[in-house]
Amino acid sequence: MVELITLYTAKICPYAQRAEIALEESGLPYKRYEIDLSNKPEWYAPKVNPASKVPAIAYGGPDVAPETPSPESAKIAESLVLLEFIADLSASTKPLLPADPVARAKARFFIEAVLSKFTGAFYGALTRGEDPAPVLDTIDILQGLLPEEGYVVGEWSIADAAVTPFLARALISFKHDIGAYDEGAGKKLYDVLQTDAKYARFRKYYADVSSRPSFKDTWHEDVVIDVFSKRFNELRIQRLAQK
Amino acid sequence: MVELITLYTAKICPYAQRAEIALEESGLPYKRYEIDLSNKPEWYAPKVNPASKVPAIAYGGPDVAPETPSPESAKIAESLVLLEFIADLSASTKPLLPADPVARAKARFFIEAVLSKFTGAFYGALTRGEDPAPVLDTIDILQGLLPEEGYVVGEWSIADAAVTPFLARALISFKHDIGAYDEGAGKKLYDVLQTDAKYARFRKYYADVSSRPSFKDTWHEDVVIDVFSKRFNELRIQRLAQK
Ligand SMILES: [Ca+2]
Repeated sequence: MVELITLYTAKICPYAQRAEIALEESGLPYKRYEIDLSNKPEWYAPKVNPASKVPAIAYGGPDVAPETPSPESAKIAESLVLLEFIADLSASTKPLLPADPVARAKARFFIEAVLSKFTGAFYGALTRGEDPAPVLDTIDILQGLLPEEGYVVGEWSIADAAVTPFLARALISFKHDIGAYDEGAGKKLYDVLQTDAKYARFRKYYADVSSRPSFKDTWHEDVVIDVFSKRFNELRIQRLAQK
Repeated sequence: MVELITLYTAKICPYAQRAEIALEESGLPYKRYEIDLSNKPEWYAPKVNPASKVPAIAYGGPDVAPETPSPESAKIAESLVLLEFIADLSASTKPLLPADPVARAKARFFIEAVLSKFTGAFYGALTRGEDPAPVLDTIDILQGLLPEEGYVVGEWSIADAAVTPFLARALISFKHDIGAYDEGAGKKLYDVLQTDAKYARFRKYYADVSSRPSFKDTWHEDVVIDVFSKRFNELRIQRLAQK
């Protein structure tokens, strides 16, 4: 029996959106609680996640308000741990991983590639002002792991939940040229991604994942543009001032 | 039905030993093939793992010699992907993860902590000559995640497979003072780990995991000492020469 689920999340955070997308796809009922990352409630670290990050889930225990977590619920953190946890909870009602061990391994290998290739390249550009061009190479690696059509392992799975929030933020960054990278570098990449035949498979994939209600209901484009603009365009200015 | 398994591995490699330990614990039959990492066979990257790393598994297909992998077998890489894969294969015969979703999440959270805390601190000391003292802090974090007795989640699981090969290599490095770090720093840490009451839980845990046949049969201490001495004491000399 699946017990009570409270998700601690934040609209801006791609790691948190992973868990939110998986919960939406699972069909499991859950409470959503927004954590203000710039002003975290004082109870959050001691009572939910000592690392003070989102996402985290309180699972089980009595039906309490999210602001007063019960010591009787299990507290679980780390986005990839949560994807597997949600898939375990919904395995018999709405599978979020295929049954075949080889297909499950392919989903997990894709998640590992998102972690080891794509996110580092994207955050290097967004937050440290590195050249964003290598992000294209990592998108090419990811699209090379996709089947000819459909999701990462055919049916939608937690592998798709793992990548979509990061792709969405990268596209928003590039489209609006928001980031610590050199001015204009984002827009240039965005044009390539939108028009170059090389990225046709990526475009179709992104259209597929981003049209699902699980993404649309958990994606807050205005918040991402607002926070990214304030934070990363400021870093760009600081970086250029130090040159 | 579980199909043919060929594991491509190397005695020196902690990532590969993870998979080997899990296969030993699973009871599943498999072929073991040693890859000479300093002289990899030319067929390995094109036919088994494009990243040219160990471990990798060829799964299914016809019963061929490991040196002539069949295109009909699935090729799976990345040590943590393989731990989950092996657990999936043996789920109904010899579970390597508990059934309870919360306990599974705890196992995966521990694996994440090994990756994000311990291995970076250890390799920083071993290969880049960083101060090894922070390794003690990461060992303290790991032992803080352990229950009062037994394995990571009570019964032995893939979480124990994930950490043991790295603990074994860290202890060997420190005991024999082999590494790019300053001479004597390893031995000092080793003494602390062996005698300080603070690390009693760690010592008991390591005694438990390292006494299992799955570890003893896959641990090649002489090889590790030999390769580490040649490689990392040389790096220590180079580092000091550059000072
Ligand atoms: Ca054996």
